[in-house]
Amino acid sequence: MGIRQPKLAEAEPTSENVSQPAAAGGLRIFSRIADWITSDRIQLINITDRINEIVRRSGIHDGLVHLQSLHTTTAVFINEWQDALLHDVRSFLDELVRRENGWRHNDPQYSDCERKNADSHLRGMLMGQSLCLQVRNSNVLLGTWQSIIFAEFDGPRTRQVHVQIDPGERGT
Amino acid sequence: MGIRQPKLAEAEPTSENVSQPAAAGGLRIFSRIADWITSDRIQLINITDRINEIVRRSGIHDGLVHLQSLHTTTAVFINEWQDALLHDVRSFLDELVRRENGWRHNDPQYSDCERKNADSHLRGMLMGQSLCLQVRNSNVLLGTWQSIIFAEFDGPRTRQVHVQIDPGERGT
Amino acid sequence: MGIRQPKLAEAEPTSENVSQPAAAGGLRIFSRIADWITSDRIQLINITDRINEIVRRSGIHDGLVHLQSLHTTTAVFINEWQDALLHDVRSFLDELVRRENGWRHNDPQYSDCERKNADSHLRGMLMGQSLCLQVRNSNVLLGTWQSIIFAEFDGPRTRQVHVQIDPGERGT
Repeated sequence: MGIRQPKLAEAEPTSENVSQPAAAGGLRIFSRIADWITSDRIQLINITDRINEIVRRSGIHDGLVHLQSLHTTTAVFINEWQDALLHDVRSFLDELVRRENGWRHNDPQYSDCERKNADSHLRGMLMGQSLCLQVRNSNVLLGTWQSIIFAEFDGPRTRQVHVQIDPGERGT
Repeated sequence: MGIRQPKLAEAEPTSENVSQPAAAGGLRIFSRIADWITSDRIQLINITDRINEIVRRSGIHDGLVHLQSLHTTTAVFINEWQDALLHDVRSFLDELVRRENGWRHNDPQYSDCERKNADSHLRGMLMGQSLCLQVRNSNVLLGTWQSIIFAEFDGPRTRQVHVQIDPGERGT
Repeated sequence: MGIRQPKLAEAEPTSENVSQPAAAGGLRIFSRIADWITSDRIQLINITDRINEIVRRSGIHDGLVHLQSLHTTTAVFINEWQDALLHDVRSFLDELVRRENGWRHNDPQYSDCERKNADSHLRGMLMGQSLCLQVRNSNVLLGTWQSIIFAEFDGPRTRQVHVQIDPGERGT
């Protein structure tokens, strides 16, 4: 079953859509789209390095970084990146939202959705598609064991995360 | 049972409390209160158009929009707006947090709460009352299938969502 | 069992690490670290007053305040601060994520984690470690019954919440 697959290799980044050039003087917001091609129905991808790279390229030293996945059957959240724990995350979400549960979204009598992905929607809704974090010294502020994780709940697909960095000037 | 009621008609907007005039030059934060009178104990309301209208009236082209419901027995989150799926969302939350479960908050021996709404609190806590999204080209950045949903978990009541838009200037 | 302990006394604040002086003119971001020593494995702490005190000291009148716990086995969220309800919150999370459930993260065959805290990670992931709220008139915007709650899921430990306030200027 896809949800229990141990495969966790990071999805290939395809391209980085450039929507804005670097901020001049660190006073303008900066945005990029990071995208991935996922390979499994359920897949967790560590996107920390990718987000930090975008933050560094922005030239913005301090402020807020906002991440938003534009897909309802995905999520962006924080957790430790450890193989055994990632297995538990998938088991937990698999048990919490059963794939087969008489969902109306999967029932042709009520729904025209052919993907039968009610579980994917409910998992995405619970975990959230939007995450706001602090930028400090040109890095995302994260604890030692915190990684930013993108969760695919209905792959394989091409997925985008919109990254926006809002600069702030620190007091001296 | 309230939670399974199929009624999903959008609640009537009552008024829009004007807390601030439009931002001058797009460089000042702008805030409004959007409110609704809900009609059921559990009710999902698509507030996307209402939020987009506030964003457009702000005159702010790019930045962040922050939504916050000031009620602990409500939530604001993102999902697809499809009837069959909304039914599943209600069933899922109904099963995840049972209304009757020996909650202390509902027990006069421990609590002076007469609404017996422990389930409403726990659902609101899980789904969250605060949501931050990007503003692009005078619109909330959302995927094709993403809607902003306000969830009433203890209606009927009058409910408010505070909307604040923080402008950013884009690099050229 | 720790999770059902009625003890809820606020943990002792230890110190407030000063990372930045007060913003001059309300136009610079302001940040502080608030920390606590927790005393139980599962503990809920009302941090509302502490956060409001930081907001007031920042000199920032309007804007956004961002809270982030740097620990994966904690969470920051909103709920009503009522003893009976807090008991229900702990019961609910205890039942939703069982401590003993054959988690791989706790199994020496798969994991080098000696804390056997898979449940703590899963609870922290579900509830979230990051929270963004509006600042109005030098206070965090909160409803009458909303408190900001820090949840310890793997104490006792010293825990930090990074608080950043981003100023905005209101239209006149």
